[in-house]
Parts: sequence; structure tokens; C-alpha cells
Amino acid sequence: MISVDQALAEIMARLPKRRSSLCSLEESITRVLAEDLPSDIDSPPYDKSLVDGYAVIAADITSGVTLEILDEVIAGQTPTKSLTRNTAIQIMTGAPLPDGANAVVMVEQTSRQGQQVTINLEQILPETNVMRRATSLSRGETILPAGTRIRPIEVGIMAEIGYSQIPVYQQPKLAIISTGDELVDVSTTPQNGQIRNSNGPLLSTLGTTYGALASSLGIGRDDPDELTKLIARGLQADILVLSGGVSAGVKDLVPAVLNELGVQQVFHKVNLKPGKPLWFGVRQQENHQTLVFGLPGNPVSSLVCFLLFVAPVISQLVGVESENLRTSSAVLTADYQQRGDRPTYFPARLTQDNGTRYVTALAWKGSADQRTLSEANALAFFPAGNQLYPKGQTITVFEIPS
Amino acid sequence: MISVDQALAEIMARLPKRRSSLCSLEESITRVLAEDLPSDIDSPPYDKSLVDGYAVIAADITSGVTLEILDEVIAGQTPTKSLTRNTAIQIMTGAPLPDGANAVVMVEQTSRQGQQVTINLEQILPETNVMRRATSLSRGETILPAGTRIRPIEVGIMAEIGYSQIPVYQQPKLAIISTGDELVDVSTTPQNGQIRNSNGPLLSTLGTTYGALASSLGIGRDDPDELTKLIARGLQADILVLSGGVSAGVKDLVPAVLNELGVQQVFHKVNLKPGKPLWFGVRQQENHQTLVFGLPGNPVSSLVCFLLFVAPVISQLVGVESENLRTSSAVLTADYQQRGDRPTYFPARLTQDNGTRYVTALAWKGSADQRTLSEANALAFFPAGNQLYPKGQTITVFEIPS
Repeated sequence: MISVDQALAEIMARLPKRRSSLCSLEESITRVLAEDLPSDIDSPPYDKSLVDGYAVIAADITSGVTLEILDEVIAGQTPTKSLTRNTAIQIMTGAPLPDGANAVVMVEQTSRQGQQVTINLEQILPETNVMRRATSLSRGETILPAGTRIRPIEVGIMAEIGYSQIPVYQQPKLAIISTGDELVDVSTTPQNGQIRNSNGPLLSTLGTTYGALASSLGIGRDDPDELTKLIARGLQADILVLSGGVSAGVKDLVPAVLNELGVQQVFHKVNLKPGKPLWFGVRQQENHQTLVFGLPGNPVSSLVCFLLFVAPVISQLVGVESENLRTSSAVLTADYQQRGDRPTYFPARLTQDNGTRYVTALAWKGSADQRTLSEANALAFFPAGNQLYPKGQTITVFEIPS
Repeated sequence: MISVDQALAEIMARLPKRRSSLCSLEESITRVLAEDLPSDIDSPPYDKSLVDGYAVIAADITSGVTLEILDEVIAGQTPTKSLTRNTAIQIMTGAPLPDGANAVVMVEQTSRQGQQVTINLEQILPETNVMRRATSLSRGETILPAGTRIRPIEVGIMAEIGYSQIPVYQQPKLAIISTGDELVDVSTTPQNGQIRNSNGPLLSTLGTTYGALASSLGIGRDDPDELTKLIARGLQADILVLSGGVSAGVKDLVPAVLNELGVQQVFHKVNLKPGKPLWFGVRQQENHQTLVFGLPGNPVSSLVCFLLFVAPVISQLVGVESENLRTSSAVLTADYQQRGDRPTYFPARLTQDNGTRYVTALAWKGSADQRTLSEANALAFFPAGNQLYPKGQTITVFEIPS
């Protein structure tokens, strides 16, 4: 049985190339830039004043000097006069600096009498309160590099430098199929032995959270023909995630149907808990490749397998390079007895107190216990082997994104 | 001039009531529950086995005991036979526990000869590998309380307990108008004195990030009639944000137009930097109330005012109770000289090294310098007053959500 790291390496080795496409400025939020974006403008477009005051020649300013006011410039105007020695031009915030000026005295530091202004400063350094042309943005210069994750701040910058259509990495299409005769739709009341299909909505919204275009195709019954049709539909996506049907039971039809549809198995079973029955394969057809994941049917195993193995695929395709499951460490709040030969990812709650991070393994009642997950914001990691992890010990945790 | 805290209190005192509405399960992601959600089922619906193995009576198990196999139960089946002393029933993971059984021995701990099974255990405690009915969910019990923020995990739980339509707090409608004759649309090349409207996309995507239904209504020209029409449209939203037109310049028409349209000014100018010209008012018409914010026109002031004053309003309305701008502390990486009589929110970069959080004030080139913001993930806070904050000092920071 392969390890988690080996499984992840097998998956990542089969990742298709990232594709890019254009989207609108507003839709680009949370997406990742597929190209460097150069500016088409200088910003500011001219030397400008950062304050309301008087444009001056710095060398003229000595204590109590009085200058002649030549003109007034407001934002949006172009100065028509140039400064000469011992003159000043009244200027508003944002207005273009007149020729000859190299500093601006704030209005609060002056007193005016008619066309004369007295400067109440000992001296002023050249460039004071001046912002030179292209200080912020320079035409042709890359302002946002490929790989930038777009926040509202970046949307503002892209608007400033003239991009209404944004080149971003495409969102992969993710199809979800929940398999099993025991499943009924959320709007149906389960009868004897039935449970509602919660994995479909869980996995499709997880996919959305990571940036995929996710859709749940519904329930695949334990009927070879019906299952074949549904899986064939799912194979049109970039990533097909099936939940259930991959453990070793008699009725687990999924691997056989996948094989018939041309999906090549890469591995089946991974050494972890929960999630051991994980199945992974690839279908390569002409120009379309589908990565296929068979996840165990219970919600907690499904969640763990999705976070560990499917989320990194989506993240890579949408251009998020960083680790998905943010690994960090935290201090155990209670003893934890690890048992068995499989590394364990246990639902846990991460809290913070006075700068220290604490982790509490939840009172998880088995892999179908979805409810306890609502308290989970992390997975606590315990390596294989029987060992007591005492309260106070620092362990590795994986944060579940919210 | 009122303080930031006073301004925020004035705004919060005028918040309308939260409204709720139904949305689909998949659309409920990131929303907040407006009602308690009770379960309509017991989970598990019956006592069940957590492993593949043999259902037994715990008291029968002694080292090497051999039991007679009465029957076999798989998931989805109902057991037809009951255990009697010294018998066992073969059982699959998830299958209902037969009457009489109170523990399950894992198949790995047994050896089978025909209809006999030998148990390779010293003893077994009652309840081992058994999950009793309703251990996870109990019918009628509130599983997710009102106020829960919905993650994929909660989507899965809501599917399990039968909710296909989810009662969530409504998203407020947010309208954005950028004012000023110097503005041109993003797809236009700015001529002399013109700049592109970057605040519209910046503020609308900020609104989206916080959960509002945001739309940018475009550019409001410095023309009373045109501005009146556009603002009247904006007043149909729950929150109207105008950028520009609220400082003290001759052409700042916005306050006059708002007044004419029945918007009552609550305050104008707040003691902070950047963002001092902030304007806030309310229009109350029959059943519709609009909160109106006039933000300074430059992008950095706009951003700071939005984060400090508009984001908390959206968050409250969508049901996120917690602070928006997460306040924390960090260690300065370089000296910072604070000047002037206004508390300052300075664009900054927060980093983490070995568990310590560091903050670096960015080389911000004035309030129109939007580009430097792309490095910002926080605002560094410096109280009013001339003071040198030396490298190594711990200061307050506000995290900018990404």
C-alpha cells in the first residue's frame, strides 16, 4: 500500500497544463493572473503636488521669506506659467507642478497678503510634498506579475492600468457522483437503511471553495448500465470525483465501470486513516484528460481524501502555488492515544490563546459522524504506530480552509 | 471632528434589521444561518457496526472461544435473526446490529471454519465497534444554530438532516458611484488630467468579498442633474457608497445633491488619516432605508474608509458577528515616525517568522499610490501625536482580508 506522499506524487505527475482565459474585472476576484500585466500609463501622469499650498523653488526658502504669487493651479488644470526665483504659484492637491518648482509649502505653513505669500519655515528640502511623474506606475513596466492572486486591491490597480478583460487561469470542471443504492436525495425522507446523499453537496461546495467549477451529478445506483451512463457524463469534466463504491464489497461496481470506460487505474488504497480505500486513475482521450478519484463513501473519509488529494489538484490548476492544507503546529489540550499502523488525520479544533495555538482532537464517533465535523477547523496528524501523545505535546496540524 | 469610534457608533446605531431568505444548499456556502436547524432524522438510524466482522455477545468472549455463525448482514439489510448465547452473526461495516448483540469483533481478529468462527481475543468490552442509534444526530435536536457561518462541512450536515432550502441572512444591496469629471472608464486611455475609475471596481469587489450584492453604477459627472439621477438610482440599494466629491473643493457637489434627495447628514469628517473627509448620512423613505457613505476619492483613503466603516455594516447585515478588521499586534521591522494630530492607518505588510508576527510600513508614496497597496495585507495603526515608533516595538495592526 502506497503512502500519502507517494499517492500525491502519482497524482501530481499526471496534472494537465494550466489553461488561461479572459474574464471581466469584477469576475477576476480570487482568480490568479496567467500573464504579467504591464501598465499603459505613467502614474502620476505628471509631476504633482501632494498638498494644498504653494509651489516654490526650494533654494528660495529661508526663514520668513516673502514670495510673489504668479498664478493658481487646481487639479485637472495645466500650469501656464513657470516659476522664477522668489516667486510662488498657489497649487491644489493633485495639481501639476509648474515648471521651475521643486517643492510645495503646505498652506498651513504660510500667510498670504494679496499677491504676496510669507513662508513660515526655516527651509524646505527639494522634492518636499512633490510626487514626480511615474513614481507609482511607469508605462511598460510590469505592475502585477503572472501568478498574482487577485484581491480587491489588485482589481483597483488593474482598472488604473487599463485592463477590463483579465487573463486568468481557467477553473477546472469538477463533477461529483455519489454512488450507492442506500442513498436518497436531500429532499427525500430516508426509509429503512437509507441515508441522504450528503457527499454530493459537501464535495461540490468544497470544490467551489478551492476554485473549481463544481457540479454534483447526483446519485449513481448500483446498476452497471445506469452507472456507466452517469460516469461517462462525469468523464467530460477535468476532474471526476466519485464517493462510495471503492471499498472491497461485493457491490462495489465502480472500478469495473471505470475500467470499461477507459480509465486507467494508477493506484487503489493508500496508507492513511480515514481514507484507505482511495482509488485514483486517469482517462486520456485525444485532447481531453480526466483525473478520476474514487473516495470512500463516508463523509469524514471523503472530506479527508478531498483535502489531501483533490484540493491540491484544483489549486495547482487555478494557479495557487502555495500549500492547500496549511501545515502548522499546535499544542495538544488532552492526551491522545494513537493506535494502528496507519498515519491518522483526525478531525480537530484549533484555537489560539495569548499567541499559543492549541489543538483538541474532537469526540469523533466514527467515520459516519458528520456532525462532529462542524466543530472541526483542522485535522490533527498522528504518525503510524501505537503511541500516547500526552497533553502539552506539540503536534502537526492541517488547517481546513473556511 | 468626531473620532473613528464615535463615527462607527453613529453608523451602527442606524443599522436596519437583518432580513432572511431561502437559498439552495449549494448557494448557501459562506452565508450565515438565520434560523436554528433541527434534524428530522436519527443518525445512525439504528444501532450499527463500525467494522467488518462478527456481531457477538461480549460476555461470551474468552480466549479462543468458538461461536456458531447464525446469519450474515450487509449494509442496507435488516437482520432477521437474533443472537443467542455462544452464537455470532457475520456483519459488514454500517450494517444494523442484530438483536442480542452488544459488540462486534473485527474480522482480522477471527478465524472461520465453515459455520464456526474462532475469536482470537482475550475479551471484548460491550459496545466495542458499535455505534448506537442517534449517537451522531437525534431527531428534533438543533444541529446547527442560527448564526452559523456555512462551510462545505455544514453543507454536508444540512444535506444529511434534510434541508434543500436554507434560511440565510440576506445579502445587502450595495451600489457604488465614483464621482468626478477627471474620471474615465477603464477601457478609455486617459488624456491630460484624466485618471481611470479604479474606485468603482475596487469598492464593488470589496463589497462582494464581505458578502454584499455589489454593483458599480459607473461615473457621476460634476453636473447636478446627471449626478441627481445617478444618486437617485443608487438610493434604491441598501448601502450607497460614493467615492470622491466630499472634500471641501468648489466642485464638490455630492453633499448638496444628497441633501436634495432627502438624505440626512449624520456626520462629515472623521479624525483619521487617510480618510478625514468621510461623509455619512441616511435616507429613510417609507419602508426603505439607505445608508449613504461619501468616501474620499483617492484609492488608499477609499480603501481605509471602506474597511473601517462600510465593511462592518455589510458584515452585521449578513450575520457575521465577529470583527471585520481583525485587530492583532505585530513587531515593527523599521523605525516609523508618526506626525500630526490624526490617528493613522498606514498600509503595511504583515509577515510571520518562527511564530512572531512582524509588520513593515510600506513605502507609500501618497494617497494616490495604489500600486504600493498590492504589497499590503494589513493597516498599521499609529495613534495621533508626534512620536517615533522604533524598530522592535509592538504595535496594533488590522488585517486586510484577502
